[in-house]
Amino acid sequence: MTQDQQKLPRYSGIATFMRSPYQPSLENVDIGLIGVPFDGGVTNRTGTRHGPREVRNQSSLMRTVNQSTGVAPFDLCRVADIGDALPDNPFELIQSHNAIQRFYEDVVARGIMPISAGGDHSISLPILRALAKDGPVSLVHFDAHCDTGDDYLGSKFHHGSPFKIAVEEGLIDPTKTIQIGIRGSVTDKDIWKFSHDSGMRVIYMDEFYKLGTEGIIKEVHKLVGDTPAYITFDVDGLDPAFAIGTGTPEVGGFTTFEALQMIRGLSGLNVIGGDVVEVAPPFDPSGATALVGATMMFEILCVAAESLANRKKSGS
Amino acid sequence: MTQDQQKLPRYSGIATFMRSPYQPSLENVDIGLIGVPFDGGVTNRTGTRHGPREVRNQSSLMRTVNQSTGVAPFDLCRVADIGDALPDNPFELIQSHNAIQRFYEDVVARGIMPISAGGDHSISLPILRALAKDGPVSLVHFDAHCDTGDDYLGSKFHHGSPFKIAVEEGLIDPTKTIQIGIRGSVTDKDIWKFSHDSGMRVIYMDEFYKLGTEGIIKEVHKLVGDTPAYITFDVDGLDPAFAIGTGTPEVGGFTTFEALQMIRGLSGLNVIGGDVVEVAPPFDPSGATALVGATMMFEILCVAAESLANRKKSGS
Amino acid sequence: MTQDQQKLPRYSGIATFMRSPYQPSLENVDIGLIGVPFDGGVTNRTGTRHGPREVRNQSSLMRTVNQSTGVAPFDLCRVADIGDALPDNPFELIQSHNAIQRFYEDVVARGIMPISAGGDHSISLPILRALAKDGPVSLVHFDAHCDTGDDYLGSKFHHGSPFKIAVEEGLIDPTKTIQIGIRGSVTDKDIWKFSHDSGMRVIYMDEFYKLGTEGIIKEVHKLVGDTPAYITFDVDGLDPAFAIGTGTPEVGGFTTFEALQMIRGLSGLNVIGGDVVEVAPPFDPSGATALVGATMMFEILCVAAESLANRKKSGS
Amino acid sequence: MTQDQQKLPRYSGIATFMRSPYQPSLENVDIGLIGVPFDGGVTNRTGTRHGPREVRNQSSLMRTVNQSTGVAPFDLCRVADIGDALPDNPFELIQSHNAIQRFYEDVVARGIMPISAGGDHSISLPILRALAKDGPVSLVHFDAHCDTGDDYLGSKFHHGSPFKIAVEEGLIDPTKTIQIGIRGSVTDKDIWKFSHDSGMRVIYMDEFYKLGTEGIIKEVHKLVGDTPAYITFDVDGLDPAFAIGTGTPEVGGFTTFEALQMIRGLSGLNVIGGDVVEVAPPFDPSGATALVGATMMFEILCVAAESLANRKKSGS
Amino acid sequence: MTQDQQKLPRYSGIATFMRSPYQPSLENVDIGLIGVPFDGGVTNRTGTRHGPREVRNQSSLMRTVNQSTGVAPFDLCRVADIGDALPDNPFELIQSHNAIQRFYEDVVARGIMPISAGGDHSISLPILRALAKDGPVSLVHFDAHCDTGDDYLGSKFHHGSPFKIAVEEGLIDPTKTIQIGIRGSVTDKDIWKFSHDSGMRVIYMDEFYKLGTEGIIKEVHKLVGDTPAYITFDVDGLDPAFAIGTGTPEVGGFTTFEALQMIRGLSGLNVIGGDVVEVAPPFDPSGATALVGATMMFEILCVAAESLANRKKSGS
Amino acid sequence: MTQDQQKLPRYSGIATFMRSPYQPSLENVDIGLIGVPFDGGVTNRTGTRHGPREVRNQSSLMRTVNQSTGVAPFDLCRVADIGDALPDNPFELIQSHNAIQRFYEDVVARGIMPISAGGDHSISLPILRALAKDGPVSLVHFDAHCDTGDDYLGSKFHHGSPFKIAVEEGLIDPTKTIQIGIRGSVTDKDIWKFSHDSGMRVIYMDEFYKLGTEGIIKEVHKLVGDTPAYITFDVDGLDPAFAIGTGTPEVGGFTTFEALQMIRGLSGLNVIGGDVVEVAPPFDPSGATALVGATMMFEILCVAAESLANRKKSGS
Repeated sequence: MTQDQQKLPRYSGIATFMRSPYQPSLENVDIGLIGVPFDGGVTNRTGTRHGPREVRNQSSLMRTVNQSTGVAPFDLCRVADIGDALPDNPFELIQSHNAIQRFYEDVVARGIMPISAGGDHSISLPILRALAKDGPVSLVHFDAHCDTGDDYLGSKFHHGSPFKIAVEEGLIDPTKTIQIGIRGSVTDKDIWKFSHDSGMRVIYMDEFYKLGTEGIIKEVHKLVGDTPAYITFDVDGLDPAFAIGTGTPEVGGFTTFEALQMIRGLSGLNVIGGDVVEVAPPFDPSGATALVGATMMFEILCVAAESLANRKKSGS
Repeated sequence: MTQDQQKLPRYSGIATFMRSPYQPSLENVDIGLIGVPFDGGVTNRTGTRHGPREVRNQSSLMRTVNQSTGVAPFDLCRVADIGDALPDNPFELIQSHNAIQRFYEDVVARGIMPISAGGDHSISLPILRALAKDGPVSLVHFDAHCDTGDDYLGSKFHHGSPFKIAVEEGLIDPTKTIQIGIRGSVTDKDIWKFSHDSGMRVIYMDEFYKLGTEGIIKEVHKLVGDTPAYITFDVDGLDPAFAIGTGTPEVGGFTTFEALQMIRGLSGLNVIGGDVVEVAPPFDPSGATALVGATMMFEILCVAAESLANRKKSGS
Repeated sequence: MTQDQQKLPRYSGIATFMRSPYQPSLENVDIGLIGVPFDGGVTNRTGTRHGPREVRNQSSLMRTVNQSTGVAPFDLCRVADIGDALPDNPFELIQSHNAIQRFYEDVVARGIMPISAGGDHSISLPILRALAKDGPVSLVHFDAHCDTGDDYLGSKFHHGSPFKIAVEEGLIDPTKTIQIGIRGSVTDKDIWKFSHDSGMRVIYMDEFYKLGTEGIIKEVHKLVGDTPAYITFDVDGLDPAFAIGTGTPEVGGFTTFEALQMIRGLSGLNVIGGDVVEVAPPFDPSGATALVGATMMFEILCVAAESLANRKKSGS
Repeated sequence: MTQDQQKLPRYSGIATFMRSPYQPSLENVDIGLIGVPFDGGVTNRTGTRHGPREVRNQSSLMRTVNQSTGVAPFDLCRVADIGDALPDNPFELIQSHNAIQRFYEDVVARGIMPISAGGDHSISLPILRALAKDGPVSLVHFDAHCDTGDDYLGSKFHHGSPFKIAVEEGLIDPTKTIQIGIRGSVTDKDIWKFSHDSGMRVIYMDEFYKLGTEGIIKEVHKLVGDTPAYITFDVDGLDPAFAIGTGTPEVGGFTTFEALQMIRGLSGLNVIGGDVVEVAPPFDPSGATALVGATMMFEILCVAAESLANRKKSGS
Repeated sequence: MTQDQQKLPRYSGIATFMRSPYQPSLENVDIGLIGVPFDGGVTNRTGTRHGPREVRNQSSLMRTVNQSTGVAPFDLCRVADIGDALPDNPFELIQSHNAIQRFYEDVVARGIMPISAGGDHSISLPILRALAKDGPVSLVHFDAHCDTGDDYLGSKFHHGSPFKIAVEEGLIDPTKTIQIGIRGSVTDKDIWKFSHDSGMRVIYMDEFYKLGTEGIIKEVHKLVGDTPAYITFDVDGLDPAFAIGTGTPEVGGFTTFEALQMIRGLSGLNVIGGDVVEVAPPFDPSGATALVGATMMFEILCVAAESLANRKKSGS
Repeated sequence: MTQDQQKLPRYSGIATFMRSPYQPSLENVDIGLIGVPFDGGVTNRTGTRHGPREVRNQSSLMRTVNQSTGVAPFDLCRVADIGDALPDNPFELIQSHNAIQRFYEDVVARGIMPISAGGDHSISLPILRALAKDGPVSLVHFDAHCDTGDDYLGSKFHHGSPFKIAVEEGLIDPTKTIQIGIRGSVTDKDIWKFSHDSGMRVIYMDEFYKLGTEGIIKEVHKLVGDTPAYITFDVDGLDPAFAIGTGTPEVGGFTTFEALQMIRGLSGLNVIGGDVVEVAPPFDPSGATALVGATMMFEILCVAAESLANRKKSGS
């Protein structure tokens, strides 16, 4: 059905991610596109539970070949929309994370690489728990916030802390973690102390334009090399002009062109999965943020499919 | 999967009509929910091509049982989202109608009753061509316009004329056709002359409140009796306060409560299909019109499922 | 050009009121459709300066014949869009009113009946100054507020006081003035004391449904008889569900259907002009309020054209 | 400051409820206007955490005297905005309810009557826990849903169940509870079985127009008499045309005019508090729902202030 | 009237392009500003039929002199809004193109240079048919897509193919055609093969920032020289942050500042006309895209007027 | 209360500027955050009267420390929201300015430095009248327009002329005035002649990218040195992609990142106050412009607080 639906008018048919086939059975899938409609970890404006559906909707505008890199992910791998990772009890944060983790454990067990659309950024934690069973992975992290914060309003787990916990749980290697786009006012000068103390490479917007996207790409490759790498893209890394539909927009971010350049520059990494998070449709009257989210998800898919195809070719 | 998806959080999963199972194979289906994303017959504001997708999206708010009538359509029949009837050549009106007709001929051939979401009102014509193979059917028509107009801007076929052509082609019986909610300024005093001359029962808004919804229901039953009846609901029959997201809104229409009363009052008719048309999401910033469209589609489904179940029970 | 433009697709061409011919020369015109883009008298949310343009835009949805009453205003009279009455100095309220008044004096001098789209309600005052040169006229006034208030924030002239001043200046006869739809919280129990003391007939929403629109129409005719009558329609008379795009919406108003019934019921009055005011496009994301304003303007035009045609026929 | 701010232009100053004085100290207050920015109990569309702020914003349109009933709440009682009842841990439902309860216990201990703006409907439960220390109270409940449901997605506590739990905890007397406006599709025919079994009076929309608002008011008085009564108004009781900005809109509800009539008809009850819940600003592009919420809150305040003033007068 | 209207408040009067005089007679006009409200060639999101009206509306923000270049187009030439090029039969693509062509043939016959606002990009084809009677012209083309595609959904003519057909019909010289801003995912790696094979200069976004706007301008002048040149600006060439209101937005485009620099850099070309296409107001909640479209149209007008004035001066 | 409210969830509580304490008494305040809800000087789209409230609302997203510069304004100074400067008579421009001036004179008399949110740009004039009692001050002015224009529509005072008048009244030193971001079409080539003739440094967008933000910062410091400097930031200096919610947007402006760099570069100036003006919420459907306005206000606050703290430290 895939090829069929992707050739039909883009406004037609049910909305799956990038009009890929809908395969909730998880069978015959190399790369699974997954929604995680959970926003129980949000500290301010909520609504990312509606993210996966709107990203699916706007992703109809995606086509099958990356014109810039030439990668054709649907030709390289069997890509399917495998549905949503759902919390059993969406009213309770920790139980929800556990349920999401179980979904991804099943996905990983079947040898499927997950590319996900959130949901708030706290969902990266249960995904990493499922993916990093064999030791900490590298992390390429686009965001306005380091998300390595402490407890907030009585909870250790929220969308501002997943990567601190991920380090503590041995899921990511902080010395192979790079955080790009950090900015915004803060409640505490040392709010991202954990990132610095643990050895993460933090690229604030103040440094961003000094390095340029090419410089940043070089740093990523130097840092990550060929270790297993997870890509996480919080749309609030982008300037609000490009992505207003998110919970904690921060003025002064990078552009979508720069984001495209950076994700394309990840080609060659040993990608094991990725996500695009924090698309909040209720704050996105024009739908532009969901479109941007869908585009970034497509670009991550291209890099991931290329990486997977290379691994298969090389028999690894 | 149906029951599963309908029990999951409403914001989750891919959006099918009323979270019913997605069955593009058309197998094991009694009632098919169909999208017709075509707006090539529109004379003013366009955009109903996006109607099916947004109706699917908002129809997540629907649940499985009609609290008012007690009808549980998903228990009475096998109901599924069977995808979209798609034009081969959306740039050309007549060819598009032919393609839509072929889809419905296939549906009818498999014994599936269609309940559709448009698309502009011109789509009712190819649907009726597929349904009325054995002679003209009765028509219960909610609308601000009779849609029995003459050629417009060089075309006989457009969203203001389907029911004139349907009479001419012997698809509907004008003496068993009732049109409810007619109003608005016109370009010609005799614009709906065809309705009157052919013997249709036209209920203008001026008469609507004199009859009341109960009086109208009585008229429908008297007129239609137990003949095969098709229900067509143009959301512009509703006042724009309830349905601004449509191409030709006309101030002064009926309310959604009145619409619910009228559709529920169709219980007992021998329903062979129905549609909800003219939802134009680009003109619907709050999504309310798509929600109203989904609700009307659910109510038509309830009446249709009850009718079909009765026919099966009685062996007809 | 009129007939031409009114036969073309409604989304095409420059937007004049109801696609009538644009005749800023004021020549060969019986009824002039006029915009008054002034909101200097507003006490809360502003933006009605953009009202005329959006009413022009949405009035493209109007056609040439009133289906309910059979009146065809463009056949009965020469109707044209004669442009905007513009303040010389929009920064200063009294000078602005004077400039508007001069425009209308010119219109009246040429024997043109004005039907206007505001602008805030303060514009009715300079219009009445131009129209009521020969003594006070009757007033049929649809509104949530009596607009007979005292000074506010240091000004006697604002959109909450025009009809008090109009009485004081001898422009309207309070005993032949009827105000319909009054409601909302107030700053002072006696805020509309002037209406009551001067003998106006005030129909609060509490009484509205007891009388019904037919009862109200009877009262209007009894009160006004065949005296020269001006019709003023503030869209905030309608419930915000029908007209949210206005400066001081008040929950609990009448419906557009009821408004249509009431304006059509004015048939037989000796109409000398009318206006629709307080459409504030910046607060009207769906455009519905401008559409409602355009529809009410069309209905007033129909009653006015019929009245004018009758006067001409009878040689008065 | 109150009187000052209420006399200034409505668009000016910080936004407190109805421009009442901001008194977070809780001193010298008879009636406290309280926000409860909590939406952790929502089962579908979220966002009512932003409700109190937008209701405060739109409530600037309110003035000081009820034109219909003549009640002037700010003259009768000392009314103040006393800030928000805040959860300690907004990520956890039960802890949040406990924190809200403690805030209201403090309010009640100081002899302040609370009138609140939610937040989702689950907040009525902790409020009632604070108010009904001396035994079950009566409940006048406007809503599309009975909110007496069972566990949902693993939680007993959510915005569809507060009044079942309130009965179980002895906070409300089901035989003195009336639920008005019930409608919509359901997941189970017997979903509101608890309401019926416990003896609540449930007025479905099917019955609503048979009784009329006057009939309903009579039933309320007969049922409740002079027992302590709490008023809870879920804006989804209204039709979506009047209140689209809410989490679970249901087509076919009552109008704002009917709501005003019903609340005003509560005059004479022994009111001990009230709330307006489920205003979800992210789904309310025009702001109309927040305006409606503010208006209903004002009307409840009027009834409550009158009741309190009468109690004081009579020394009770 | 021109000068008058352009000196009045920008929110007043009927909306013509840049408040220029409305001259549907086509008399005494050097440069005609024309709307083409046609979207029958659209392959995805529709609505550009409403483009001309909204561009007219937002173009009120334009003034008469280009501050950057000093060009005053209304002083250099007689510029007027000459109305819309209208299809006879908007339901049929080829007939529509023919009607549009006839309108432009009339314009050209009167010696008027056309600057147009679409409509979808397919309209450039009939315009070029009217303009290139004497042999192929040069083309400066800003866009995210080359629009030199093959048949799509059964039609050779659609908004993704006009410039392939234009080459085939000998209307443009591919070796003097430059396409700027190309990007986005594609359905086929070789989708723009025709551009490359025919010798067009294609500047993908990947190359854009390497050349810089100054480099691009140089290329244009080198390529086009003093041959007759047509300028076509598809607003989807811009990044969606600047122009979300369009049918096929592609993330990662150029900025408006860069667009202004490039159009201004066309000064010195031998301009024979231009268009701005694909403004789709239903997808433009803030109106920003129509404003951008109006601004680009103004900039093209400035370059065109300067070129025309130079030709007149030099007697050519 | 400050610290408390700034630690609570950002969506909670009443909305003051940056969740600072509300202190209308003006006591114990070093820097007063002030709203000026006045738009009587607007020449086109109105609505900035609603600016202060929406900037307050969106400023909840601000936190207490500037991550880029390390400045913690709430630690350096006593910062409070001291309410709105209100016109007595908002219907009259000159009286309104006088009332605003009196408010600021009171603020200045108490030794409070004002940081304001408009309102239209005409409000900078009365603020400067209050601040520059001891002779002309320097001006750092971000804007698309020089605002040194002549009379417009009969008024000398409007939002396009404050800085001409400020020079004439001796409030600012034109040779120490720098205007950054100037662009857009104009009605007259010499519209900003006054700026040039009086010796202001005008940086048009054409020059902006040649200098770069670092070059501009250097010019500012060279020009202003340690003279008392006022910072005024009109959000229309930004490109409309970043700030569409304003009255006279001009395509082709600078980005928010560039704005942040420039404001941060003002560190070291002798700041005596600042304002952010022309946020017009009715034209800002996503709220992004108010967020940008709040962010710029925070950045100005940081520079101002640092400057004030330095003055205090040095005893000046």
